Amino acid sequence: MNGWLHIPSTWSAELMAHAGWDSLTVDLQHGMHGLEMAIQMLQAISTTDTVPLVRVTWNDPGQIMRMLDAGAYGIICPMINTRAECEAFVGACRYPPLGYRSLGPTRARVYAGADYAEHANDEMLTLAMVETAEAVANIDAIASVPGLDGIFVGTGDLRLSLTGGIGFDSADTQVDAALDTILAACARHDRVPGLFTASADYARQMIARGFRLVTIKTDSMLLSESAQQVIKQTRGE
Amino acid sequence: MNGWLHIPSTWSAELMAHAGWDSLTVDLQHGMHGLEMAIQMLQAISTTDTVPLVRVTWNDPGQIMRMLDAGAYGIICPMINTRAECEAFVGACRYPPLGYRSLGPTRARVYAGADYAEHANDEMLTLAMVETAEAVANIDAIASVPGLDGIFVGTGDLRLSLTGGIGFDSADTQVDAALDTILAACARHDRVPGLFTASADYARQMIARGFRLVTIKTDSMLLSESAQQVIKQTRGE
Amino acid sequence: MNGWLHIPSTWSAELMAHAGWDSLTVDLQHGMHGLEMAIQMLQAISTTDTVPLVRVTWNDPGQIMRMLDAGAYGIICPMINTRAECEAFVGACRYPPLGYRSLGPTRARVYAGADYAEHANDEMLTLAMVETAEAVANIDAIASVPGLDGIFVGTGDLRLSLTGGIGFDSADTQVDAALDTILAACARHDRVPGLFTASADYARQMIARGFRLVTIKTDSMLLSESAQQVIKQTRGE
Amino acid sequence: MNGWLHIPSTWSAELMAHAGWDSLTVDLQHGMHGLEMAIQMLQAISTTDTVPLVRVTWNDPGQIMRMLDAGAYGIICPMINTRAECEAFVGACRYPPLGYRSLGPTRARVYAGADYAEHANDEMLTLAMVETAEAVANIDAIASVPGLDGIFVGTGDLRLSLTGGIGFDSADTQVDAALDTILAACARHDRVPGLFTASADYARQMIARGFRLVTIKTDSMLLSESAQQVIKQTRGE
Amino acid sequence: MNGWLHIPSTWSAELMAHAGWDSLTVDLQHGMHGLEMAIQMLQAISTTDTVPLVRVTWNDPGQIMRMLDAGAYGIICPMINTRAECEAFVGACRYPPLGYRSLGPTRARVYAGADYAEHANDEMLTLAMVETAEAVANIDAIASVPGLDGIFVGTGDLRLSLTGGIGFDSADTQVDAALDTILAACARHDRVPGLFTASADYARQMIARGFRLVTIKTDSMLLSESAQQVIKQTRGE
Amino acid sequence: MNGWLHIPSTWSAELMAHAGWDSLTVDLQHGMHGLEMAIQMLQAISTTDTVPLVRVTWNDPGQIMRMLDAGAYGIICPMINTRAECEAFVGACRYPPLGYRSLGPTRARVYAGADYAEHANDEMLTLAMVETAEAVANIDAIASVPGLDGIFVGTGDLRLSLTGGIGFDSADTQVDAALDTILAACARHDRVPGLFTASADYARQMIARGFRLVTIKTDSMLLSESAQQVIKQTRGE
Repeated sequence: MNGWLHIPSTWSAELMAHAGWDSLTVDLQHGMHGLEMAIQMLQAISTTDTVPLVRVTWNDPGQIMRMLDAGAYGIICPMINTRAECEAFVGACRYPPLGYRSLGPTRARVYAGADYAEHANDEMLTLAMVETAEAVANIDAIASVPGLDGIFVGTGDLRLSLTGGIGFDSADTQVDAALDTILAACARHDRVPGLFTASADYARQMIARGFRLVTIKTDSMLLSESAQQVIKQTRGE
Repeated sequence: MNGWLHIPSTWSAELMAHAGWDSLTVDLQHGMHGLEMAIQMLQAISTTDTVPLVRVTWNDPGQIMRMLDAGAYGIICPMINTRAECEAFVGACRYPPLGYRSLGPTRARVYAGADYAEHANDEMLTLAMVETAEAVANIDAIASVPGLDGIFVGTGDLRLSLTGGIGFDSADTQVDAALDTILAACARHDRVPGLFTASADYARQMIARGFRLVTIKTDSMLLSESAQQVIKQTRGE
Repeated sequence: MNGWLHIPSTWSAELMAHAGWDSLTVDLQHGMHGLEMAIQMLQAISTTDTVPLVRVTWNDPGQIMRMLDAGAYGIICPMINTRAECEAFVGACRYPPLGYRSLGPTRARVYAGADYAEHANDEMLTLAMVETAEAVANIDAIASVPGLDGIFVGTGDLRLSLTGGIGFDSADTQVDAALDTILAACARHDRVPGLFTASADYARQMIARGFRLVTIKTDSMLLSESAQQVIKQTRGE
Repeated sequence: MNGWLHIPSTWSAELMAHAGWDSLTVDLQHGMHGLEMAIQMLQAISTTDTVPLVRVTWNDPGQIMRMLDAGAYGIICPMINTRAECEAFVGACRYPPLGYRSLGPTRARVYAGADYAEHANDEMLTLAMVETAEAVANIDAIASVPGLDGIFVGTGDLRLSLTGGIGFDSADTQVDAALDTILAACARHDRVPGLFTASADYARQMIARGFRLVTIKTDSMLLSESAQQVIKQTRGE
Repeated sequence: MNGWLHIPSTWSAELMAHAGWDSLTVDLQHGMHGLEMAIQMLQAISTTDTVPLVRVTWNDPGQIMRMLDAGAYGIICPMINTRAECEAFVGACRYPPLGYRSLGPTRARVYAGADYAEHANDEMLTLAMVETAEAVANIDAIASVPGLDGIFVGTGDLRLSLTGGIGFDSADTQVDAALDTILAACARHDRVPGLFTASADYARQMIARGFRLVTIKTDSMLLSESAQQVIKQTRGE
Repeated sequence: MNGWLHIPSTWSAELMAHAGWDSLTVDLQHGMHGLEMAIQMLQAISTTDTVPLVRVTWNDPGQIMRMLDAGAYGIICPMINTRAECEAFVGACRYPPLGYRSLGPTRARVYAGADYAEHANDEMLTLAMVETAEAVANIDAIASVPGLDGIFVGTGDLRLSLTGGIGFDSADTQVDAALDTILAACARHDRVPGLFTASADYARQMIARGFRLVTIKTDSMLLSESAQQVIKQTRGE
């Protein structure tokens, strides 16, 4: 299970790292943190064995490489709609000759060992987000890119793209069909399927359906919803 | 109901300010924030009508005055054990001739209006923490200090002081007797009684018993516990 | 009237928000703030009713989307020289099917309400900067892009591009002619015309001429110039 | 002339350092900065020859010593009401045998040279604030403390203490008499007299009267007032 | 061996934590960090097994307690000159009935386990700095305070106090005699003797002499000196 | 000689600026700092006469322009493999008509004077990194771009690209041949040749060979290696 970090704080990151998640993702796309805070949060996660991931803002090689240098063990890249975009993303995560990542793993080699650069191409996770109708249509072209490790579904964006509707976790024929398409492509190309969910219930359904990297809510949602709940409970509502 | 902020982040503060708390306390005693972040969190709370309070690190006039200048509408001061300590605390919150607060309400006058200094002595809340056996023994001397608005019980420290035990919210004869003593003194001297609780259940009991400024958990507890809960739910535990 | 923020501080942002501006722009192009400070400054502006805008560093969809998610109510995008650039910019500000903005309005939905995403396409302002000879030549192609709300003139860059000269606010035949061209295009396509000015005098002239979103100086200029003035006054110069 | 810094930003500090002030004071009493930002602002001031001063939060030896170690060339200490308080303040600024400052001028020795500690007792300015009726009554006892360099009048607090009134710069018999008392004591004991003013006019009057370290407004006031002024000018009010 | 942190950065702290020190001290007395950065640096140290210590700014119970709550495993307190000062220091580090530390180990219990508060009185290190002639004269009164774990010599301040001289590590009869006095008192009262050194040579001599918690240089010195050395080497000087 | 900054701290930057380097480079590609810290570090460098340079994250015009506006006196741009990439880079550093840099040198004009913009095209250094086989093959096309000032070799990436090996400074036929090719092209086109080295020895060899902008290690390496060395020396290893 994967936790999702939107609060720009090393303390909330450390708390989440101790909560029992298998991995934690610092979200630079919709989170409230800048790059330097993201790096400090990766440090905070390193106080535990939780695997640190980063969702980058965009398919931007400079940012992808920096977050890997800073100790991310994998990158989730939003809005991969074509094979070329996926190749650019994966290439930014791999040293030559497999890609074009620049050498300089400043924190990664402190944290993972002096031989980091020799093993990084094998170990760093690359997860392409599929979250539009176009991406679903191109799913085999995307999923078959060499060096890609998984497909991560942005369920909110996918629903919006397919149906025009806004929301998470609701049953929806078109979204469900797209999820089947994606799962099948992941099986065909031996990629890890993952997705974002906004509830434990939906997460369980998705795990049952075959998703393996399942995010459940964000830290913002957890804090906000539990505060509202405790206020209601105290008021006796 | 009063929320309690330990996470050093303006974003978590703004989320909490929108969650429905009547007031929010930036806790500089056991929280993870420095002074500048505390000020920025007061700004974040000011995006809503939630009343901003600060628990200071210690009975330190410099810090008390800075947090008032920065826009806190009240101060909770830890470890007030004697009348002299309470007088020093209240004096730091009041302009002459009632106290010795220094004039310079930099942010307070922007946020509360140019006439802030003329009304501050009437409006700023002063809450003395009673959390030791010594303080309970001195309760009338403390509660009767002119200008004091309320007594806030540090339930964890009070239990530790009275019983040597560590914990929150548990029924305990000695603590219960002390709470009765404190409530009675608040009634005698017309002070608002408040306390920290670690659960909605205990908060409800305490409200029923007459406490009016009731804190329920910290943001750290809310985040950590709800993360653990959602992980368990997803695992089907 | 629109204020312009270059100082990376939530306190100066809050002061400016209380000064009476209709809107305030956090300038990520020539300002001294990083992304996280920009977000915190948007929070500080939200303590008032002043409309928060952001000028982004460049026509970069990732940054544009993040600032909208963080609560900007409009984006000013520099160096729009062609219709394609304008379409890319506007598309980054609009959810499908009008554009390709990714769904995840983390702070925007707290601050603007849970239904933010349903109304954002109608409400978020999109202002393209026209500040080169090329852009003036393409003014109709740019101004007619569907979903664009206004044209904001970068007067310093425009002068430099047209005349090779450096400065603000000076009368200049070529610049004046370009301003007429831009105003006419705005009228034709029903777009709000705006610009940057470095003095109240020039701002008044420009308002009289038809500009509606008029920026007057930056916070840096206001602070620096007023400090120099008060020193001179005290010295009796 | 002395500028006064309330905005927590290295950029506004650098701007002020280039504006022509003889000295700049980072105000940790009523300013919005934490300790670390104060240190960074001292660095920003060091890009020019402007003399960096710090007003500390309170007569606290730990904070006084840290700001000297960080490169402040003088300390303004608030609320010195008695000779003992003044001795404690001056002692915190002087190495043994003149005082009890702890040795460790981390930044000061980089910035002022490796022999800093040998000359610091002669060079670091010590300015005691006289801002209450009690302090005026004790003025000779305070001003005669060995090692004290000057008396700085907190005009707002002094007025409040003497008259109960709130405001700056207004003519007031009691305040005027106190200023005369202070100036005379400074002359008797060869101390530099200084004060805070909120306008160039009052500053000029005070310089004419004999004050030598004259502060004029804060950066917050300069920014806020000039923003309001430029808005009015543009509106034609 | 103990490293000493003056650079306010989580990255330099993490680098130092990986360099092989047994313990690392975040120095809030002469370092350049504020409280919040100190906490983040404690997090960075927790990515390794290096023991995190804090030297506090002054014998200030509020700050001492905050740093323990934030995860420091021991406190070094400057300028302990009398038994009463030592008792106040040690009491701030111990929960009742041994002391008066307030209960609220926010980060400590996450990092050290939920039963932290039950064991903290036994585990948190308390190290009093002896660095003046007065303290040496009071050495038995200081060293015998119950709950004290060690004596840490501030060699620079001690030399200054005893001889008026400024410097580190130089042989000096008076300082040497004081070190003998301190070592003997540590032996008598079973306290760990420690000190600050500015070179590996002096550190080795001091270890041979019986000191056990030996600090060697600061991170600032290491960076500055090694930069100067590599420049000289490259220039062939 | 050029120092290289990876530690996100104004204090380490100021220390390095005083260490004797001719120039210092804030490295936004492999360093741990965000944009705002980079700007503050440029301020810290400005306390000395050391020339401030920035290596940007990627060939991104927005970031390049911001760092110039913030006071960088030159930009090192990674991964320039083609003439078109080099032209885009140099254009971002030059005002029209030589390039497309946007006008708004916020800090640069404070620090370098009000006429900064008139001289910037002549004074700002542009250094393209050549660090792949492709770039070496295109060396004349790259080096001949008008407005380019120098070629900076990324020795780690170049070795990886040419040989698949990871490391610095080792003798290697293929790398040596490429360095010759690059030096010859620099001579032909009158460009400054520079490179990164990880030791004083290699730096001396490279200076002897004709390189003029020679970087020796990073601040992280200096701190980490000197800490390890002092620990070993103290242990007598």
